[in-house]
Amino acid sequence: MKLTFLGVENIPMVQPGDDLPTLIVQGMESMGEKLQDDDVIVIAQKVVSKAENRYLNLADVVPSDEASKLALEVDKDPRKVQAVLDESNEIVRTCPGVLIVEQKLGFVQANAGIDQSNIINENGEDDDLCLLLPVDPDASAAGIRSALGARHNVDVGVIINDSIGRAWRVGSLGLAIGVAGFTALEDYIGQADIYGRELLVTQVGAADEMAAGASLVMGQTDEKTPVVVVRGYKPREPADSNLRGVTPLVRPKEMDLFR
Amino acid sequence: MKLTFLGVENIPMVQPGDDLPTLIVQGMESMGEKLQDDDVIVIAQKVVSKAENRYLNLADVVPSDEASKLALEVDKDPRKVQAVLDESNEIVRTCPGVLIVEQKLGFVQANAGIDQSNIINENGEDDDLCLLLPVDPDASAAGIRSALGARHNVDVGVIINDSIGRAWRVGSLGLAIGVAGFTALEDYIGQADIYGRELLVTQVGAADEMAAGASLVMGQTDEKTPVVVVRGYKPREPADSNLRGVTPLVRPKEMDLFR
Repeated sequence: MKLTFLGVENIPMVQPGDDLPTLIVQGMESMGEKLQDDDVIVIAQKVVSKAENRYLNLADVVPSDEASKLALEVDKDPRKVQAVLDESNEIVRTCPGVLIVEQKLGFVQANAGIDQSNIINENGEDDDLCLLLPVDPDASAAGIRSALGARHNVDVGVIINDSIGRAWRVGSLGLAIGVAGFTALEDYIGQADIYGRELLVTQVGAADEMAAGASLVMGQTDEKTPVVVVRGYKPREPADSNLRGVTPLVRPKEMDLFR
Repeated sequence: MKLTFLGVENIPMVQPGDDLPTLIVQGMESMGEKLQDDDVIVIAQKVVSKAENRYLNLADVVPSDEASKLALEVDKDPRKVQAVLDESNEIVRTCPGVLIVEQKLGFVQANAGIDQSNIINENGEDDDLCLLLPVDPDASAAGIRSALGARHNVDVGVIINDSIGRAWRVGSLGLAIGVAGFTALEDYIGQADIYGRELLVTQVGAADEMAAGASLVMGQTDEKTPVVVVRGYKPREPADSNLRGVTPLVRPKEMDLFR
């Protein structure tokens, strides 16, 4: 089995309202490539958020007393802390320099995934400009998938990925925050190993493994490669609609031993 | 940029004492492929442990009172619990069915990485047979790397990976437990984004991202593909020997907000 992670070249700097399916197809064409059925397209959260105009200007944010107090504790801009709180269900951990929350979508991550790098406004000023996660990354992924299907007649999977920290590991990892068109969580429960014994490792975060591999190709210090096409993995759409999207990968709080 | 993850075919069932570098080269040859400089070879922990004869028969384990008491709490075989304790620095979390520890090497994982699937002894009996992690996976990786260099004149990176659970995510992910020949943790500290601002996401778990992508190719329900060659990533050996191996990826306990 061979998997290929192909960075899509010539994706321009994405602006609000840009049509990502078109940019992806044009990027592939510029390389002499075409999307194929069963490709999984991994798209960096940042360009999805930009296309969806999820900018927030901190100059427009008035921090509450709670945010101002917390800002002292975590040594961050009170307006940024307010923005994080607005995007979160709850605070998970804090210490100087660190604010880990449960983002509204259930993801445990630093700063609710709010980003300040590689962002600039029309006037070339960037200091107060932030980028929030897409409102509904599964819907964003599904929209891109269905647009590619309708216009180009290809049946692809789509992942939106983001760089997320880990509890016990140093360094971020690209993980899926939105999934469409295939099973994010491969479930081997009930299957047997080669000796007929029931498997102990039974669930695999397949979409996260793809998001992580794609992240290597995307790199971190620029946005030149915000889209990666994974070829060679046979995605399967789950029959049960409850198992679609990224939700099966998100551990429910009541099952979380570390909160 | 294009990354390929090539599953190495025709690796036989690995036996204690088997020479993995030879099996890898023969597997590649059977596909008409050759290792190249800068390839990163990802090897499943299980076959490294088998080659290193890290079998443990639970019939030989006498559980202590502590292990027997804990076994009731976590609903596991007391001998298995004793084996986990013997392989661990400390217990991190327990609940019925779950025993998460800091494995001797510093990895926070369930059951200290001790495995019971796809393991069988010479008599075809398997119920009591377990497989421990390699004693020193960095040394195992370095040994395979240097053997390939000496015998086949290729300069490759090596990762030993294992399927490890996550605090906030459902489903395991392939992660690096041993690394040789390149920088496991890519460090962008001090580098600027495309607008010249200092990057917020500064450290990336590159070896983990490769280990995760390789895990997709390895699959889970059999051992047919325990070795994956990653081609297209330019590995760099860190100049500072303290930054070699897997250690830079392991968060020190004193920096862990979730214990």
